[in-house]
Amino acid sequence: MNLGRVAGTLVASRKEPLMEGLTLLVVRQLDVDNTETGGYVVAVDAVGAGVGEIVMYASGSSARQTEATQNRPADAVVMAIVDTWDVDGETVYTK
Amino acid sequence: MNLGRVAGTLVASRKEPLMEGLTLLVVRQLDVDNTETGGYVVAVDAVGAGVGEIVMYASGSSARQTEATQNRPADAVVMAIVDTWDVDGETVYTK
Amino acid sequence: MNLGRVAGTLVASRKEPLMEGLTLLVVRQLDVDNTETGGYVVAVDAVGAGVGEIVMYASGSSARQTEATQNRPADAVVMAIVDTWDVDGETVYTK
Amino acid sequence: MNLGRVAGTLVASRKEPLMEGLTLLVVRQLDVDNTETGGYVVAVDAVGAGVGEIVMYASGSSARQTEATQNRPADAVVMAIVDTWDVDGETVYTK
Amino acid sequence: MNLGRVAGTLVASRKEPLMEGLTLLVVRQLDVDNTETGGYVVAVDAVGAGVGEIVMYASGSSARQTEATQNRPADAVVMAIVDTWDVDGETVYTK
Repeated sequence: MNLGRVAGTLVASRKEPLMEGLTLLVVRQLDVDNTETGGYVVAVDAVGAGVGEIVMYASGSSARQTEATQNRPADAVVMAIVDTWDVDGETVYTK
Repeated sequence: MNLGRVAGTLVASRKEPLMEGLTLLVVRQLDVDNTETGGYVVAVDAVGAGVGEIVMYASGSSARQTEATQNRPADAVVMAIVDTWDVDGETVYTK
Repeated sequence: MNLGRVAGTLVASRKEPLMEGLTLLVVRQLDVDNTETGGYVVAVDAVGAGVGEIVMYASGSSARQTEATQNRPADAVVMAIVDTWDVDGETVYTK
Repeated sequence: MNLGRVAGTLVASRKEPLMEGLTLLVVRQLDVDNTETGGYVVAVDAVGAGVGEIVMYASGSSARQTEATQNRPADAVVMAIVDTWDVDGETVYTK
Repeated sequence: MNLGRVAGTLVASRKEPLMEGLTLLVVRQLDVDNTETGGYVVAVDAVGAGVGEIVMYASGSSARQTEATQNRPADAVVMAIVDTWDVDGETVYTK
């Protein structure tokens, strides 16, 4: 999985019917030191994440293993809101 | 998912039979600020997107989860036409 | 899917038995403007493509959705020979 | 698979229910010469790896083929603790 | 698929039980001109490849389609030993 910050939301009224009712989050990717990489992904929200929150997302077929995304054409899902992580003995982030 | 702008179409008369009847779109990839990355993908159209429209596409096995693409050898599908998205409190794009 | 030019062929007599009888093409990747990216892929031929032809290939699990590649350990397949594509109102390539 | 060093752990109390009970490791990616690439991945631990250990991880749908990760929205799993590897006749790493 | 040279082997005694009995090869990636890219992958050996041999490997879910790797958490497999390939009318490599 990768880390990201929820930067915003996306609205698409005309879409594949299987995507109806899902919240789409614009997620800026973070590196392991909690700085932005410049990359992003649009991911389905499976955990009720809000703008500004630090989250973890899964990609590819694994993104379809949540209740929200099963059998849907989604290749990225926010599946956790991060409390804290540490690297090399230092706490990088705490909610 | 990633964002893109439909830049054109592609025609291939000699192809795997399972690809018959599908519209193939040439999609220029966009970054989160709605500028082109230089990358592209050829994607099956699942939503009737037209040239010039800003769309969202899914990649990999998730690209086969639409009605149009099920069980077909397609690794990218345009599955939504974007109305609007915002980043860090600013509207980046509105249709 | 991505675009490529068939640059050559590859022969491997010692291989996983499920790969027997498949033609392996060396494909140089093309960008959307029909210039080579420097990248390549070795792909199974599902459409009888010849050296020099401009083709479209699928990657990942989608590469196993053709008759030729089903259940085989192939992660790339040439699944169409391209007739033409256009970008931003200009024809980039015509066969 | 790729090589990595377990650099830390990650805690997320609000998450997709299928992720309950799994240990999440922050893994710095290593190149073939055992130097860090700057990249990372958050991976589920399937082998009881500790911080500082050199491990091997699998990505994508293959990450769901361990007992710990089956049918869960995980796209990376630490599935081995490395004892040793050699490259071009030299031992690069020994535990 | 991509091309590589088997540069060495890797040993991991503590691992996911489904990986027992598999040979793990350290493969340096090759570009289409048979020069090393600097990248690598650790791949399961499905064809009895030896150190120094030029091979072809498959990635992702396709890596689980050999007899050796079925249902195992392996995301790369060496599935052919290359005899020869040509590019743009020239033989790049012959065993």
